[in-house]
Amino acid sequence: MTQQINGQLIAEHNAQAAARVNLDYETLGEQLARRNVDTHVLKDQVARFAVAVPSWGVGTGGTRFARFPGLGEPRHVFDKIQDCGVIQQLVRCTPTVSPHFPWDKVSDYQELRQHAEAHGVGFDAVNSNTFSDQKDQPLSYKFGSLTHADAGVRAQAVAHNLECIDIGKQLGSKALTVWIGDGSNFPGQSHFRRQFERYLDSNRQIYDALPADWRMFLEHKMFEPAFYSTVIQDWGSSLLAAQTLGPKARCLVDLGHHAPNTNIEMIVARLVHARKLAGFHFNDSKYGDDDLDSGSINPFQLFLVFNELVDAAQTGAAEFDPAYMLDQSHNVTDPIESLMTSAVTVQRCYAQALLVDRTALTAYQDSNDVLMAAQTLKQAFHTDVTPLLQKIRMEAGGAADPVLAYRASGYRKQMAAIRPASGPSSGIV
Amino acid sequence: MTQQINGQLIAEHNAQAAARVNLDYETLGEQLARRNVDTHVLKDQVARFAVAVPSWGVGTGGTRFARFPGLGEPRHVFDKIQDCGVIQQLVRCTPTVSPHFPWDKVSDYQELRQHAEAHGVGFDAVNSNTFSDQKDQPLSYKFGSLTHADAGVRAQAVAHNLECIDIGKQLGSKALTVWIGDGSNFPGQSHFRRQFERYLDSNRQIYDALPADWRMFLEHKMFEPAFYSTVIQDWGSSLLAAQTLGPKARCLVDLGHHAPNTNIEMIVARLVHARKLAGFHFNDSKYGDDDLDSGSINPFQLFLVFNELVDAAQTGAAEFDPAYMLDQSHNVTDPIESLMTSAVTVQRCYAQALLVDRTALTAYQDSNDVLMAAQTLKQAFHTDVTPLLQKIRMEAGGAADPVLAYRASGYRKQMAAIRPASGPSSGIV
Amino acid sequence: MTQQINGQLIAEHNAQAAARVNLDYETLGEQLARRNVDTHVLKDQVARFAVAVPSWGVGTGGTRFARFPGLGEPRHVFDKIQDCGVIQQLVRCTPTVSPHFPWDKVSDYQELRQHAEAHGVGFDAVNSNTFSDQKDQPLSYKFGSLTHADAGVRAQAVAHNLECIDIGKQLGSKALTVWIGDGSNFPGQSHFRRQFERYLDSNRQIYDALPADWRMFLEHKMFEPAFYSTVIQDWGSSLLAAQTLGPKARCLVDLGHHAPNTNIEMIVARLVHARKLAGFHFNDSKYGDDDLDSGSINPFQLFLVFNELVDAAQTGAAEFDPAYMLDQSHNVTDPIESLMTSAVTVQRCYAQALLVDRTALTAYQDSNDVLMAAQTLKQAFHTDVTPLLQKIRMEAGGAADPVLAYRASGYRKQMAAIRPASGPSSGIV
Amino acid sequence: MTQQINGQLIAEHNAQAAARVNLDYETLGEQLARRNVDTHVLKDQVARFAVAVPSWGVGTGGTRFARFPGLGEPRHVFDKIQDCGVIQQLVRCTPTVSPHFPWDKVSDYQELRQHAEAHGVGFDAVNSNTFSDQKDQPLSYKFGSLTHADAGVRAQAVAHNLECIDIGKQLGSKALTVWIGDGSNFPGQSHFRRQFERYLDSNRQIYDALPADWRMFLEHKMFEPAFYSTVIQDWGSSLLAAQTLGPKARCLVDLGHHAPNTNIEMIVARLVHARKLAGFHFNDSKYGDDDLDSGSINPFQLFLVFNELVDAAQTGAAEFDPAYMLDQSHNVTDPIESLMTSAVTVQRCYAQALLVDRTALTAYQDSNDVLMAAQTLKQAFHTDVTPLLQKIRMEAGGAADPVLAYRASGYRKQMAAIRPASGPSSGIV
Repeated sequence: MTQQINGQLIAEHNAQAAARVNLDYETLGEQLARRNVDTHVLKDQVARFAVAVPSWGVGTGGTRFARFPGLGEPRHVFDKIQDCGVIQQLVRCTPTVSPHFPWDKVSDYQELRQHAEAHGVGFDAVNSNTFSDQKDQPLSYKFGSLTHADAGVRAQAVAHNLECIDIGKQLGSKALTVWIGDGSNFPGQSHFRRQFERYLDSNRQIYDALPADWRMFLEHKMFEPAFYSTVIQDWGSSLLAAQTLGPKARCLVDLGHHAPNTNIEMIVARLVHARKLAGFHFNDSKYGDDDLDSGSINPFQLFLVFNELVDAAQTGAAEFDPAYMLDQSHNVTDPIESLMTSAVTVQRCYAQALLVDRTALTAYQDSNDVLMAAQTLKQAFHTDVTPLLQKIRMEAGGAADPVLAYRASGYRKQMAAIRPASGPSSGIV
Repeated sequence: MTQQINGQLIAEHNAQAAARVNLDYETLGEQLARRNVDTHVLKDQVARFAVAVPSWGVGTGGTRFARFPGLGEPRHVFDKIQDCGVIQQLVRCTPTVSPHFPWDKVSDYQELRQHAEAHGVGFDAVNSNTFSDQKDQPLSYKFGSLTHADAGVRAQAVAHNLECIDIGKQLGSKALTVWIGDGSNFPGQSHFRRQFERYLDSNRQIYDALPADWRMFLEHKMFEPAFYSTVIQDWGSSLLAAQTLGPKARCLVDLGHHAPNTNIEMIVARLVHARKLAGFHFNDSKYGDDDLDSGSINPFQLFLVFNELVDAAQTGAAEFDPAYMLDQSHNVTDPIESLMTSAVTVQRCYAQALLVDRTALTAYQDSNDVLMAAQTLKQAFHTDVTPLLQKIRMEAGGAADPVLAYRASGYRKQMAAIRPASGPSSGIV
Repeated sequence: MTQQINGQLIAEHNAQAAARVNLDYETLGEQLARRNVDTHVLKDQVARFAVAVPSWGVGTGGTRFARFPGLGEPRHVFDKIQDCGVIQQLVRCTPTVSPHFPWDKVSDYQELRQHAEAHGVGFDAVNSNTFSDQKDQPLSYKFGSLTHADAGVRAQAVAHNLECIDIGKQLGSKALTVWIGDGSNFPGQSHFRRQFERYLDSNRQIYDALPADWRMFLEHKMFEPAFYSTVIQDWGSSLLAAQTLGPKARCLVDLGHHAPNTNIEMIVARLVHARKLAGFHFNDSKYGDDDLDSGSINPFQLFLVFNELVDAAQTGAAEFDPAYMLDQSHNVTDPIESLMTSAVTVQRCYAQALLVDRTALTAYQDSNDVLMAAQTLKQAFHTDVTPLLQKIRMEAGGAADPVLAYRASGYRKQMAAIRPASGPSSGIV
Repeated sequence: MTQQINGQLIAEHNAQAAARVNLDYETLGEQLARRNVDTHVLKDQVARFAVAVPSWGVGTGGTRFARFPGLGEPRHVFDKIQDCGVIQQLVRCTPTVSPHFPWDKVSDYQELRQHAEAHGVGFDAVNSNTFSDQKDQPLSYKFGSLTHADAGVRAQAVAHNLECIDIGKQLGSKALTVWIGDGSNFPGQSHFRRQFERYLDSNRQIYDALPADWRMFLEHKMFEPAFYSTVIQDWGSSLLAAQTLGPKARCLVDLGHHAPNTNIEMIVARLVHARKLAGFHFNDSKYGDDDLDSGSINPFQLFLVFNELVDAAQTGAAEFDPAYMLDQSHNVTDPIESLMTSAVTVQRCYAQALLVDRTALTAYQDSNDVLMAAQTLKQAFHTDVTPLLQKIRMEAGGAADPVLAYRASGYRKQMAAIRPASGPSSGIV
């Protein structure tokens, strides 16, 4: 194992925090005991929670207006894996990385896999990219990829997805995430129904190539990069497509890909009902697909999503096995810091959702005691589970305060010395 | 036939307009001929277009803040039918009325049917109402109807729907529209999945009672009267429900029931694909379910909806047979004037959609000539088909300018003398 | 003093809670001491926080679709005051009531004032109502009030506001809140500029009648009851009007009256800058003017609003003296329970905002340490101040858990026996 | 004059269209005569309408996900001017170009000015750019420009704007447009009030450097590139800033920079009232700042904006003198074709707004004849003014159908041969 952050440093950091964390953890335990919650059981549950990190997330993001690079940004997938290893070392709930192709293509995937293992991480779902053109790509995706009017372009996009599956097999992945930018910018540009049929046809070819134990995650998005229509614009179209393709196809929920005011936790409930919930791309937003840090804008919404997930798990919902990933664009923060903080935020909401007194909640729901039902959720949300999360990290060898430990380590400065700065440019994902 | 508006008055009104209308119609014909459109064929197609009027639409609407009554408002369903007869007499494209129960309950439905026939209208889909309580109703819908946690309330709501089907059979209806206000105002109030299962269970009982040649229209709505969640919040949930219930169940699209920015014409295309499009409740909105007059805020959107419908019809989409209805709340206009104007607006968009050069459009779409594809739609939308619509009305015995003829008739004043004024109050639908 | 809830009952309720509350309060104090917060100072600050209750808030609300009455609803302003007294008795942070005319008109305002004093409450801002017609009102507000095209209607609306000021003087109020429903439902219905000029002209007459120590609160709203345009649709128009009228005119922020995605805390900051912040109508919403319970949908947003307010107070912002009021519609809960819970929620956010380490925050802001700035707010928001709020209530004679104590008192049942039930109806505010 | 499109080609193109255009123009004239509109007067008015083209608009745009370059894209400002010359040659209503610095910096502005004159265009407002970093720029705008916490960065941004004024003087500009990307991505990142004060302070330095006959256009935007807050997020903040700066500062309205559902035409009316309307950046959008072609999504909204503008002009609104510019991002069309089509679309809405029967409209408004007021606008909007616009272009030497003539000219192919293709990349404005 290649530990990027000195173990001694973490140990000292934790030693300093231990007394405080232990005291707060005990106090929390006493408070929860009054609510008949066994904190040790809770701790074990929360400790098993894991969320994947996207390989592209450790680079600095941007907008169509500009990208302002950070220091020591990763140059290639090996650097990205190394950064993801740092995150996992400190937070201990991000054991896998989700790669993106062709960006993360290498000549030797066994080497990449060993590199990841050495950094303490494995591979999650593979992601294809047909929303931008690559140098030397024969045909352009300017007017679509899997849904392009031209069969040749569709074939090229299908082939790329098949290659992603192939790479994924070598990396130990078990899922392919398909998000495409296809859509239109003008009324009339695309024939909605024929375009959707081409989507289904292309995806059927990809679906047929999936190994038996793989899943295909269909990701919907309301707008951007297309601004009048997108092919899979909402969970309704996503559901239709997943139903048509078959049992391995499921619907992914990205928190930022919905219309304003949408009740996302309701969509989660519906997909659980339909046995079609693939999982999540976590982030937060105020306006559109802002790709802000998870829980930074509306933490209660994130809690409500987990309230649905915990309920589904505890009631034994059929075929319920969602995959979790962070998918954020870090334009003004150190991506490692943002991803660590976000992983902990997601974990926090999971822990709070576990605290909901579901027996009481059910009784309130069934008797229409609306106010007490609402307050039952609020009681769980008000609970500050910080010491619980710290305790879990410390027991697993992570850091009581990941950002402080990370800053103390000087990792970013070291990387800035090794990895050359990129110039200013317009934005990427 | 009981003609409310004096036929002589209409004839004179039309005689005054005839020269102008004929000239403009001929000019339009020449312009369209240059685009290879046969105006006579077009006229026949447009003349067959029909849109239903809701019985509740002829009363003055309101908001939760106030209802400002109009003059001569209908007192009961017989008055409403009479007003609908006036609309049909003048615009000639609103041959049916959609009744709402229990509001429109009478003791003798044969009498009601004959009354309608006498006024030149028939009956469209019947609508149940479980979103408000009626006097002497045993159980309240305050916390839900078809999805209520209590089985007794659900049974009452089911029974009401079964009664609506029964009444509908007597009136010659062929469809039941189910829109419910069930939802929640607080996170935690309702268990989303159990609530949805109750929805399906209750509706299955209703579905099973439908005659073989009937349809069940499921209507989704994002919010209001429930403000945190609604059971059928979008077309995705509506589709899931319709799929579960069976082939007679279809999804109704009300133009005002969507999230901000939603691409409604795309939803139309998806429901056509899924063979689940029930039809429309036409209205317009700027903010929420504003229930404004069709096409008054965004006429191009209404045109784009019809663009999908005409395309589906012309390409022979399977099981495509949508039902059209106006569903508006007239708070500051004479409802008869608004309904006449709106019916003509809907008809206008249908005519414009028929004008789209679909051969050219397909070629532009297939070759990614985006600008020309967009302009092909715009050319149709820019065409002022007013004389065509006037000609159709005049040939059918309606009025060249329905609002002018209606005002000239003094109908509203006569009704104000007969029908007593209601006092100020807070709002209704 | 007429205590509606038996003091002995509250004392016993608190005695039962005392050990737990004291322990949790001490623990919280120790945790906060580590952050250099003196809990006793904090307690004194929070204990001084007060938020007004609207007289109409203790009745059950409704929508345009239905109103489902509750049990024992207040019949008139004396009943309303009594209910408000119960709220204040139990939560101890709602010492004033904001009356609404003509709904709350009585023949003897000294009697009303004494009635309020007897129930432990005083009067806050008076509210005029020109958004609905009253029986025997000479002219209708159907097409506007203060902005009506007809000078007679405007004069009537002005006169009503002058009367409100008069009543307010008798009740000890110091402010008039002017919210009107004026707007339009169709493009073209109103001439925007002339309508606005009429608004200014009418309000100038009202403004001129204000006592020297009064304020005029202008309330903007994006839509409803008007659905295409409203005269004071946003804070920009509100600001323009307040600037034109003079220093006594200020802009009120209702949390539910904004466009989707609006950053409300930014508007607060701008109004503080402009020295024009009147205060707040607190509630929460997911879609429009949902009037849901404060903090029930997005508690972090409420915290962010208070973050601006505490910052303005602590930095000595000029002419900063906002008025706080709850303004919610309770359709499915007991209004007394909702108002008590909401008052505590607002108080909670105030306390959390006081916990923000502003010295640290400023340093992070000035050095662009974005992540730590964000985390500084989050640390305060994560703090569960429940025991602090309980301690404050208990020390002031309120209840540790207001809803439990209220339910134990049987107050609602007693009122249901005295106050007759109203029938089902369509909705009110 | 350097005519890029062969005059003979245009003449032949027009000759082919002449008979049809003349016939349709005459017919339109007869129809309008019945409404008491003198088509010749109308033609003269419309012929004087002009809208500027932004220099950056002739390049292909992109998103943060990708930019798909077009053929023959302009390499520098001289190429851009040449493309703008083509647009003006064919549509004859885009006589000026709005340059953007530092993108359009050259060593000799007299040469640039002569180049523009040679291509038949002049210069409009100059635009500064502090939303992206340039190579060799000493300080970064990553965390803000005119509002940056660091005085050095602010000074750099101010200096850049002063340089823009300087360049503008050389080019004959009379206005500076200031749009900045400053804002924040996290609650807490920026102190809203201090940030706004820095905005005012920086802009005061720029304002003070403006020549006496110049204007400063302040442009607000709700979000993007900042995703939690922006400094000038709406017209309220823009107004506050313009009021503070002085009479030369005015508020620019970009159609895509508003919250969902915003009534933009109302904002126009308010800015006219406040005498602070700078002008427009025309485009269209469905979701956010989509920068789609003007009128492509909601043409009626564009008409309603012009309805306000024509009304303001005809009623002699004080200090009313708006500047018009297209500001679109052309991702999937030939930018020249999109700009020509958009210029004509804007001109079309202006012409339609001139057709509104304002005497009738005023009467309907004053008598609350809502339906007829709405229909009065609709009558104008339904009028197909295509032949009028064609006639105006032909008389001015432009093309009856600019896109057809442009395609026939082979200009793009010629440029593709001269100007080298750029590779695929992520997006720009």
